[in-house]
Amino acid sequence: MTRWEPGARERLQAAALELFATRGFEQVTAAEIAQSVGLTERTFFRHFSDKREVLFYGQQQFLQAFVDGVDAAPPGAAPLEVIASALRAAASLFPDERRPYSRTRQSVIDQNPALREREQHKLAGLANTVAEALRARGISEPTATLAAQSGATVFGIAFAQWIREGETRSLPDIASDVIHELVNLTGTATGSPKAP
Amino acid sequence: MTRWEPGARERLQAAALELFATRGFEQVTAAEIAQSVGLTERTFFRHFSDKREVLFYGQQQFLQAFVDGVDAAPPGAAPLEVIASALRAAASLFPDERRPYSRTRQSVIDQNPALREREQHKLAGLANTVAEALRARGISEPTATLAAQSGATVFGIAFAQWIREGETRSLPDIASDVIHELVNLTGTATGSPKAP
Repeated sequence: MTRWEPGARERLQAAALELFATRGFEQVTAAEIAQSVGLTERTFFRHFSDKREVLFYGQQQFLQAFVDGVDAAPPGAAPLEVIASALRAAASLFPDERRPYSRTRQSVIDQNPALREREQHKLAGLANTVAEALRARGISEPTATLAAQSGATVFGIAFAQWIREGETRSLPDIASDVIHELVNLTGTATGSPKAP
Repeated sequence: MTRWEPGARERLQAAALELFATRGFEQVTAAEIAQSVGLTERTFFRHFSDKREVLFYGQQQFLQAFVDGVDAAPPGAAPLEVIASALRAAASLFPDERRPYSRTRQSVIDQNPALREREQHKLAGLANTVAEALRARGISEPTATLAAQSGATVFGIAFAQWIREGETRSLPDIASDVIHELVNLTGTATGSPKAP
């Protein structure tokens, strides 16, 4: 019988990420991840269905934060206010101490086409889930889909900025800045006109 | 020696789409497509590198229309005006007589995960190309990426609406309406608040 190992999931996640980053995702087995922190393969598979799932653990919580953020917006709020509320809720799952982990995780994903596809698929699923939550508030189509996809775009851009080397702003602050940019798309002329 | 066949590409495209739609993309070979319009497999492969390419022919022209539309916007135009110009240029490639073809093509793609992936990849590439064209106008990041991805979102939503059964508006008109929706995301509260 295997005992319950306190903190096993977190240790497996940290070990997996380090092994993926140093040796490449394809080259690492679940057994090696487990062994590197003194656990058995069997313990690994009690926590994750496969090694890819180590990178995507917490998906459901992430989606739920978006939906909770949609639900937390005041009744009758403009769609973009609702999206801003959803982004605040989701971004709060990424405190600054998580930044190095997120940065390394992203570099592992960026180097592997199958993982990148999984990530894109995840963002598309996010937009669908948020659109559904917006429709449940009485926001009609195509506004619901447009707002939800814009929210996913803003999150993606803010997240990429947050994990950039040298960036010090928090994810909620960056997301808020990017939403402002979205509002400004319609208003201000930007960029100096090029010489003819 | 094979002769040049006038209109061969168009005949192959029409035949391929009909076969894909009736028998399923996987079940149809390039030779069968060619034979159905009295052409040889060799003629097929002078026009398309594989049967998948029949569905994605014209990609480069589509991308170029977006970029031309970006370049056609007046100097100093707000990013969303530039995107609107790009969308007008791209949407003009889809006149109403193409609607049945586009509708059938989309249903073939929607039924095949590999084709859907290819399509998603195409939209991501579109956003990258447009972002580059925006940066070349002096629009800085993250505005360029945000505007480009918003443009791809608007195109995707407008296109899905254009091919819906019963829709009669033109693609440029729908795209223009969806851009208005994007502007309105920030402004108006929509949807009736739900009863507590």
